Amino acid sequence: MSLISVGSMAFDAIETPFGKVDQIVGGAGTYIAYAASNFVQPVQQISIVGYDFPKAEMAELESRGVQLDGVEVVPDKKSFFWSGRYHMDMNTRDTLVTDLNVLADFKPVVPDQFQGADFLMLGNLAPATQLSVINQLKTRPKLIVMDTMNFWMDIALADLLAVLKKVDVLMVNDSEARQLSGEYSLVKAARKVMEMGPKFLVIKKGEHGALLFHDKHVFFAPALPLEDVFDPTGAGDTFAGGFIGYLAKTGDISFDNMKTAIIVGSAMASFCVEQFGPNRLKEITKADIDARIGEFVQLVNFDIDLS
Amino acid sequence: MSLISVGSMAFDAIETPFGKVDQIVGGAGTYIAYAASNFVQPVQQISIVGYDFPKAEMAELESRGVQLDGVEVVPDKKSFFWSGRYHMDMNTRDTLVTDLNVLADFKPVVPDQFQGADFLMLGNLAPATQLSVINQLKTRPKLIVMDTMNFWMDIALADLLAVLKKVDVLMVNDSEARQLSGEYSLVKAARKVMEMGPKFLVIKKGEHGALLFHDKHVFFAPALPLEDVFDPTGAGDTFAGGFIGYLAKTGDISFDNMKTAIIVGSAMASFCVEQFGPNRLKEITKADIDARIGEFVQLVNFDIDLS
Repeated sequence: MSLISVGSMAFDAIETPFGKVDQIVGGAGTYIAYAASNFVQPVQQISIVGYDFPKAEMAELESRGVQLDGVEVVPDKKSFFWSGRYHMDMNTRDTLVTDLNVLADFKPVVPDQFQGADFLMLGNLAPATQLSVINQLKTRPKLIVMDTMNFWMDIALADLLAVLKKVDVLMVNDSEARQLSGEYSLVKAARKVMEMGPKFLVIKKGEHGALLFHDKHVFFAPALPLEDVFDPTGAGDTFAGGFIGYLAKTGDISFDNMKTAIIVGSAMASFCVEQFGPNRLKEITKADIDARIGEFVQLVNFDIDLS
Repeated sequence: MSLISVGSMAFDAIETPFGKVDQIVGGAGTYIAYAASNFVQPVQQISIVGYDFPKAEMAELESRGVQLDGVEVVPDKKSFFWSGRYHMDMNTRDTLVTDLNVLADFKPVVPDQFQGADFLMLGNLAPATQLSVINQLKTRPKLIVMDTMNFWMDIALADLLAVLKKVDVLMVNDSEARQLSGEYSLVKAARKVMEMGPKFLVIKKGEHGALLFHDKHVFFAPALPLEDVFDPTGAGDTFAGGFIGYLAKTGDISFDNMKTAIIVGSAMASFCVEQFGPNRLKEITKADIDARIGEFVQLVNFDIDLS
């Protein structure tokens, strides 16, 4: 099953309690592609970069089955740049710099050869940009997953609500679910958000795991307790890439299979945070991924006899 | 298998975003006894109360197999009183009043007929008080579980470290595990705490579930996502009561059985928060508990085929 991934490809500067990097490749689309390509190929990438985005990174992505026909290269502008500093708890961060650069003019065009894709992953971008991709597709994908963030709830809520009507799965973190719904209880928040359009809601809680809501059902996936969280940047995007990559591999979009996909996404995210940027994602093998998923199985496995 | 429970029996005044009560029965020992007595009887209670503690509450506990021979009734003093206010997130609270009253003079005496108990639950109390109970037991119980809190780390750390050497399982919350170990990573914190004595460490994370560490193993139990958390008071004590009650019922203190006990404790705690004080714990039946445990099984259940 083919998968279209839409998201930024960028440079980040990151400071954590464990170190800093002044410039490393990042962007939601980059992380999604690295994660998803472990499960499904091709990943059909839609993004925009400047003259400065490394050719070697493009080649690395292509070698993993990521098709870059939908990635516009702007010859006279720089790539999107984000800089942030994490606090000790790694769940909160301050944004220091946001230079939109090429992203300010991003008008995604879906290449003809991407038409007919079964799965669409909309990484965090302006809702109008996400909507324009949906509207260009001649056949509606089997599953549309959308990531977003509080920033768009603050400045583009009407656009966001319009996209929500067109997607199947929304991914946000717990505070964003509360902001969007106006409900503190995540159970109530989920019910309200699902009335806005998506039939499934994934609430990401970082080191506290993730929740999947659908209808009256809920599934809880833990995060793996780690010795060190080195750099959380991209963990949410990597989670999304693993999630939709596994769904595209299996072609099964039932609630039961989504539960497994959440575990796969969590496993991919647990690799992501072990090093700066997407570095760790480039090293891991299928055996590494299988072993990590096995750790998740152990982590929550228990037997109970109610007699 | 018999179980000794040591802990305060008290009055609380509680204010939450959903309401307030000026006086309701509380105390760690009360919650532990209500929870544990669903699984094992007798629960042999050691505590201290004043002249004002309701006779009806004592009768209610006795009707559930809680033996009160170890509960000293002081005729001319009041029971311990605590008053607190919860914030919107229900994970943080301010203590408004702490009137120790009878608790200031608590010198627990283990009744002869409690000797030989297989399980000992030390609810949150001054470490010296906890230690005195251990030292009075002529035969070491099969399992000693201890709850404590940051307050004792601040003012009685040497005493606390002395008790830690004598217990099998320590229960604390995540910030307390960090304070006790000086490590931010919970994996590293667990390793250090287990070097202090306890072979098992339970880290309670409230709405984010609980972790059980032992040797190189870790188990993650979710909290049930609830429509409303009405009053979290006593949830940790109820968790402890369910945990040790299930272990005492089964007589099995293996890591695998402790995983199940953590789920049972989590299920009991999920009832506790549904109403003020221990009220909800007095209503529930075995069928309610079994159904709730079934919800936990569903909550984390997934299938994965790594091929």
